[in-house]
Amino acid sequence: MTTTGLGGAALGAFRARFGEALSTADAALDAHGRDESGLEAARPGAVLFARTEADVVDALALAREFRVPVVPFAAGSSLEGQLIPPPGALSLDLSGMTRVLEVRPGAFQATLGGMASTNASGTAAVRYGTTRENVLALRVALMDGRVLSLGSRTRKSSAGYDLRHLFLGAEGTLGVITELTVRLWPLPAARLALRCAFPDVGSAAQAATAVIGASAQPERLELMDARGLRAVNRHLGLQEPEVPTLWIELAGASAGALEDVRALCEELCRDAGALDVRVARQPEELEALWRARHHAFYALKALYPGDAFLSTDLCVPLDALPEILTFTEEGLRAEGLDASVLGHVGDGNFHVLFHAPPGSGDWARIDALYARLVERTLALGGTCSGEHGVGLHKRRFLRAQHGDAVDLMREVKTLLDPLNLLNPGKVLPDPASG
Amino acid sequence: MTTTGLGGAALGAFRARFGEALSTADAALDAHGRDESGLEAARPGAVLFARTEADVVDALALAREFRVPVVPFAAGSSLEGQLIPPPGALSLDLSGMTRVLEVRPGAFQATLGGMASTNASGTAAVRYGTTRENVLALRVALMDGRVLSLGSRTRKSSAGYDLRHLFLGAEGTLGVITELTVRLWPLPAARLALRCAFPDVGSAAQAATAVIGASAQPERLELMDARGLRAVNRHLGLQEPEVPTLWIELAGASAGALEDVRALCEELCRDAGALDVRVARQPEELEALWRARHHAFYALKALYPGDAFLSTDLCVPLDALPEILTFTEEGLRAEGLDASVLGHVGDGNFHVLFHAPPGSGDWARIDALYARLVERTLALGGTCSGEHGVGLHKRRFLRAQHGDAVDLMREVKTLLDPLNLLNPGKVLPDPASG
Ligand SMILES: Cc1cc2nc3c(=O)[nH]c(=O)nc-3n(C[C@H](O)[C@H](O)[C@H](O)COP(=O)(O)OP(=O)(O)OC[C@H]3O[C@@H](n4cnc5c(N)ncnc54)[C@H](O)[C@@H]3O)c2cc1C
Ligand SMILES: Cc1cc2nc3c(=O)[nH]c(=O)nc-3n(C[C@H](O)[C@H](O)[C@H](O)COP(=O)(O)OP(=O)(O)OC[C@H]3O[C@@H](n4cnc5c(N)ncnc54)[C@H](O)[C@@H]3O)c2cc1C
Repeated sequence: MTTTGLGGAALGAFRARFGEALSTADAALDAHGRDESGLEAARPGAVLFARTEADVVDALALAREFRVPVVPFAAGSSLEGQLIPPPGALSLDLSGMTRVLEVRPGAFQATLGGMASTNASGTAAVRYGTTRENVLALRVALMDGRVLSLGSRTRKSSAGYDLRHLFLGAEGTLGVITELTVRLWPLPAARLALRCAFPDVGSAAQAATAVIGASAQPERLELMDARGLRAVNRHLGLQEPEVPTLWIELAGASAGALEDVRALCEELCRDAGALDVRVARQPEELEALWRARHHAFYALKALYPGDAFLSTDLCVPLDALPEILTFTEEGLRAEGLDASVLGHVGDGNFHVLFHAPPGSGDWARIDALYARLVERTLALGGTCSGEHGVGLHKRRFLRAQHGDAVDLMREVKTLLDPLNLLNPGKVLPDPASG
Repeated sequence: MTTTGLGGAALGAFRARFGEALSTADAALDAHGRDESGLEAARPGAVLFARTEADVVDALALAREFRVPVVPFAAGSSLEGQLIPPPGALSLDLSGMTRVLEVRPGAFQATLGGMASTNASGTAAVRYGTTRENVLALRVALMDGRVLSLGSRTRKSSAGYDLRHLFLGAEGTLGVITELTVRLWPLPAARLALRCAFPDVGSAAQAATAVIGASAQPERLELMDARGLRAVNRHLGLQEPEVPTLWIELAGASAGALEDVRALCEELCRDAGALDVRVARQPEELEALWRARHHAFYALKALYPGDAFLSTDLCVPLDALPEILTFTEEGLRAEGLDASVLGHVGDGNFHVLFHAPPGSGDWARIDALYARLVERTLALGGTCSGEHGVGLHKRRFLRAQHGDAVDLMREVKTLLDPLNLLNPGKVLPDPASG
């Protein structure tokens, strides 16, 4: 790389244009040199708090002029090292660009820009799709100074190449998204949820596959293993049964419309071996039911204070879910590793939440098992990342997953960012290694 | 263009490689020089009936060597001139590449490759998305000889740039799709359909918007105007009421689950002014109900034998549907044009089926009204093509719709097809004119 970074002249030019919005304060540099990956932090040269599209365009122009690498930064909740800056980089903080141009919902703690750039998804993706499927249009600032509008407000279009998707999930390496038009869904009038206890993770996965196959079209379909429930019980002071558990949420235009589907799901779960099925119909009941699932990540972290954590987000075709989950359980047992399995199993997506003291010998075994899980996942037609993205962490799996398509990805990167200034070193593997 | 086309040496080389699979028979050339657009036909230099991916790869290599333009050809049902060959082109007929590698459904008369390449959709898109949303993975042969696998069998992925979407809807201008992995949906156990008669198209559109807004999540939501029903009655010998009609199909896991939603839809339609609502629950009834809608296109053609036809496929955000439909009705009235309006209104997508004797003075007025409809559609945040694609026909609207993004489309085209041999002159506007 021939980038020179944020040296004296560059810093002066940025300061002249942006004044107070540019920060080199220790607190700002520290906050923008890390994400939630646990990878080693590295400070950027400066942080620019962008407020408008014009800020973004001008920042990219200066970056081009002075060859400064730029790392777009939203809420900082990435898990794969997406935000670790190369030396002398500008961290382009977009969290202030929250102006709602027309009716939009608020999002959880991540930002819409971050979610679009990682193609994030959550419990509702099984019914409503991932971020990708819900971005109707976007504006994107390119490294060469252009700002393009891609897509339209309609639900479908066949008018020309669909370039939106290049930028969705690109982790800030191809352009900076300055505006998003997202699809809103009406809230269903009625909801209910089933909570089903299983003797093992494999039979829970069987039930999940059956529910999707029967066209029950759930709103959410989540799995948590016994370890996860144990952590949640301790963390929240609950007394939930500590067995593999499947949550199935159903919704529709009326409460009456849901009862037949509920009965069907119950039957499918019992057929797959469910030990117990509970139903929640009232909003408070529903909330309590979901509480355990929502607190899983932090409950597990609280249970092992001081440990480092690493979460997979592997995703397989639904029919391969029982196989990969059983393979995972066996691998954990064989390695004597204590990790929790949970996930958005309606999509075939699951997390193995590994933990061990930083620097402990367990990490070599964790890394080796992770690599084996990826290998099996790919053999089953799956992907190394269902929702978190590639960042630094998963670049080593990209060639195995995509083969020669990685070269075309690189050509697209070169087309849009010929100086390699936009979040350099993320997503694409090192040319040397793959 | 510096293409030399299918001259003697090129033809010899193709014949040496492909033998009988290459045809210059009159019948083959005629069949491959046209589509359903009604635009002037033009014969290709030869037709190659490809059977395997290797055929496609070798054909592209020879095309590169001899600078022969290539027009991928599937079932030939395109409506926008996508298939009209430039002089000396090879028509690459892919309709023989139907090998089902794993469980797949058969598709209507169009092919999966053609549907993927136009991002086609139909009555079920309102519930299941367009072709784009249902292609999990594809293999594509590039002009430079590479064959890439893009995507995976999973329902979601955040692993690297999503290059699938470049080729979906590209109308054969960026690469030749040789394999598709499509998502299958389970058939719902129960179905019913409502057929609602309205005093005018505007109130039917209001009802459609209300049904979607109420989260009734219909499987289909279709509109046909009085003219369409008159044509269908004559064509099929039916006695359907000749008024604007909305069809709403609902489906779910059981018949019982549907009754509340049916009642809700009925109420919403009556609120919007429905004159009459009929319900079909049995398969035969359902089929009879849909018959009118499915035969509309050919019924209208049969009603005006000898006329030329032109169908729009404009698409607007749902909230703009009543406005654009009323604007359309007024425009038709003001111009004294007799055209039928029908469409997939649950997606905001509608067809105005213009017709007039070929060469008649009506065509200038039709063209002018079409352009005004596109202008208003774009002003409302819509698209000039909801499902048919651009072909030759709509290239003139692309700059108005996409602005500078057209330049990036052209850069992508140059990256993937630097010699401009793949379906040249389609989709992108002439550099001179926009
Ligand atoms: C406790 C916890 C739970 C999580 N659960 C989930 C989950 O259920 N599902 C899931 O998908 N993820 C999950 N994540 C991961 C993370 O929240 C998501 O990846 C999220 O989308 C990141 O959003 P952010 O706003 O924090 O973006 P950041 O982390 O700040 O940035 C994400 C990436 O996008 C780029 N970027 C940000 N904004 C822009 C922009 N405007 N233009 C161009 N590039 C940009 C950045 O450079 C970076 O590469 C979880 C993380 C944590 C810590
Ligand atoms: C009566 C009628 C009704 C219709 N109704 C609808 C409708 O409801 N919805 C809708 O969306 N469309 C509709 N259409 C339009 C048309 O059927 C669709 O566009 C269809 O997708 C075209 O498929 P095809 O197999 O005929 O492809 P073709 O017309 O042969 O080709 C379509 C385009 O894709 C390219 N192509 C074909 N195969 C490949 C490949 N393997 N790789 C790369 N490029 C390729 C061709 O070069 C061409 O540009 C209708 C058409 C008619 C005549």
